[in-house]
Amino acid sequence: MSILVIGSIGFDDIKTPFGKVKNVLGGSATYFAISASFFTDVNLVSVVGNDFNKKHFDIFKKFKINLDGLKQEKLKKTFHWSGEYTHNLNQANTIQTRLNVLEGFKPVIPHTYKNIKCIFLANIDPELQYEVILQIKSPKIIAIDTMNYWIERKRKQLLKVFKKSNIILINETEAKQLSKEINLVKAAKKIMSFGPKIVVIKRGEYGVIAFNNNEIFTAPAYPLKNVFDPTGAGDSFAGGFMGYLTKCNILNNANLRKAIIFGNVMGSFCVENFSLDRFKNLSWKDIVNRFIEFKKLTHFENIND
Amino acid sequence: MSILVIGSIGFDDIKTPFGKVKNVLGGSATYFAISASFFTDVNLVSVVGNDFNKKHFDIFKKFKINLDGLKQEKLKKTFHWSGEYTHNLNQANTIQTRLNVLEGFKPVIPHTYKNIKCIFLANIDPELQYEVILQIKSPKIIAIDTMNYWIERKRKQLLKVFKKSNIILINETEAKQLSKEINLVKAAKKIMSFGPKIVVIKRGEYGVIAFNNNEIFTAPAYPLKNVFDPTGAGDSFAGGFMGYLTKCNILNNANLRKAIIFGNVMGSFCVENFSLDRFKNLSWKDIVNRFIEFKKLTHFENIND
Repeated sequence: MSILVIGSIGFDDIKTPFGKVKNVLGGSATYFAISASFFTDVNLVSVVGNDFNKKHFDIFKKFKINLDGLKQEKLKKTFHWSGEYTHNLNQANTIQTRLNVLEGFKPVIPHTYKNIKCIFLANIDPELQYEVILQIKSPKIIAIDTMNYWIERKRKQLLKVFKKSNIILINETEAKQLSKEINLVKAAKKIMSFGPKIVVIKRGEYGVIAFNNNEIFTAPAYPLKNVFDPTGAGDSFAGGFMGYLTKCNILNNANLRKAIIFGNVMGSFCVENFSLDRFKNLSWKDIVNRFIEFKKLTHFENIND
Repeated sequence: MSILVIGSIGFDDIKTPFGKVKNVLGGSATYFAISASFFTDVNLVSVVGNDFNKKHFDIFKKFKINLDGLKQEKLKKTFHWSGEYTHNLNQANTIQTRLNVLEGFKPVIPHTYKNIKCIFLANIDPELQYEVILQIKSPKIIAIDTMNYWIERKRKQLLKVFKKSNIILINETEAKQLSKEINLVKAAKKIMSFGPKIVVIKRGEYGVIAFNNNEIFTAPAYPLKNVFDPTGAGDSFAGGFMGYLTKCNILNNANLRKAIIFGNVMGSFCVENFSLDRFKNLSWKDIVNRFIEFKKLTHFENIND
């Protein structure tokens, strides 16, 4: 089994209380793809500009990511985001977004991708997400991420995508905004009524709460002493989560729970360094060890033990 | 084994988005004592005024709480708090606090309490907390709760109490304020350096993160569809937590983790109705069932299962 991801590739300027970097590789599809590549084969659909060079392609190659669906526009520049985190590391303040190549982008799914069963629609214009769904023959799992920008501006188009999706990954504030409910249990029920029966709500440093019909699962975030750069944490979570589900190939409750833990594992590694740097020397053993740490972190005995 | 609690008994006026009540029984010692009484014998030290009548005494009697240490002042009124919760149910806005009998209160520990080994110093003036410690012969577990008011105004006296304590229960904002650290892992380490080696940080609807030297444990809050009244949730948590530890009589890591879950169980029941109403018809079976639900909520399989 392999997974297809559509999302952005970009260059980021990031400032956190611990330092700043300029023009580092980022974007939702990038973080997702690299994180998921530790679990499964990843096929990418995105677009870059004329400033995307061998050095950048080599990063994707290092993680064996299939770039058949990556378009390079020779006349435009790559998507660019600059943002800042103050002491509240849960909340990025966007300083500037330059869409560049993303403006007018029409995703075309290469022939080699059409039979892929697992799809992750990273945070991008819902109209593009929908076009991808239409081009896949018989998808088995469709998961979607989104953000306040699309909830506010393209709600109708977003709801069309939801109707076709099994899983939604969304942060807490956006789940409330989308559902118009303050209580998360009610918010999740409402979102299920839009289509996806699995609602995974990301709560930053407070972890994840996930709803699968009437089953609820909660998982903490990994308590880190130092969070250097939260950029990409959500997409790295999604990569670990969907990567593991794709590897399992069976969407049941037990796998879903482990997938969330693998998501948290990958998200926790992501924030330990700027950009994708932590993934560059990450081993499977590191991932296994942190999974085991999550077990220790949450374990308690049964009532009569 | 039995436990001693010192804290406030009061009457509350409470307004939440779901209704309002006036002059209902409240106070930190009240919530703690009633919650802990489901686990162990509870001995109370507090003070009430001339407006405290048979109806109120009967509530404590119903839960078999020892009132040898309860003083009634015939010339003053009982402590009174009025507060309001808006949609952010994590944050109470105090409208008025009338100390009444609490002003000038000097706790005297009755002879029958002096050999008690487990003590909970509920949120009250740290000078009173300290006076209680001095009157107990050879305490085994001393746990303390506090709040921003004392951290700001009586830091020095508070640190004297910390030095004598094994366990601190504190909410997240106050933990950061007390330690002057933004990162919780660092905050906990700093607080340990003040005395208590077990730091239990309450995060409202996000649950609890607890530090026991180098061990970390996280537990979610119970995902409720309706939170009617958060008043007393923290003290009910403390009651379940300390009540279970007292019952066990061994302070090890496994018991500590289960105690936190029992704390969350009791906190979750508390908020399901106004004041202490939910406890009035709560059974041990309800507690056991919710404990089991916490197990389901957090369980995931091992990496190779």
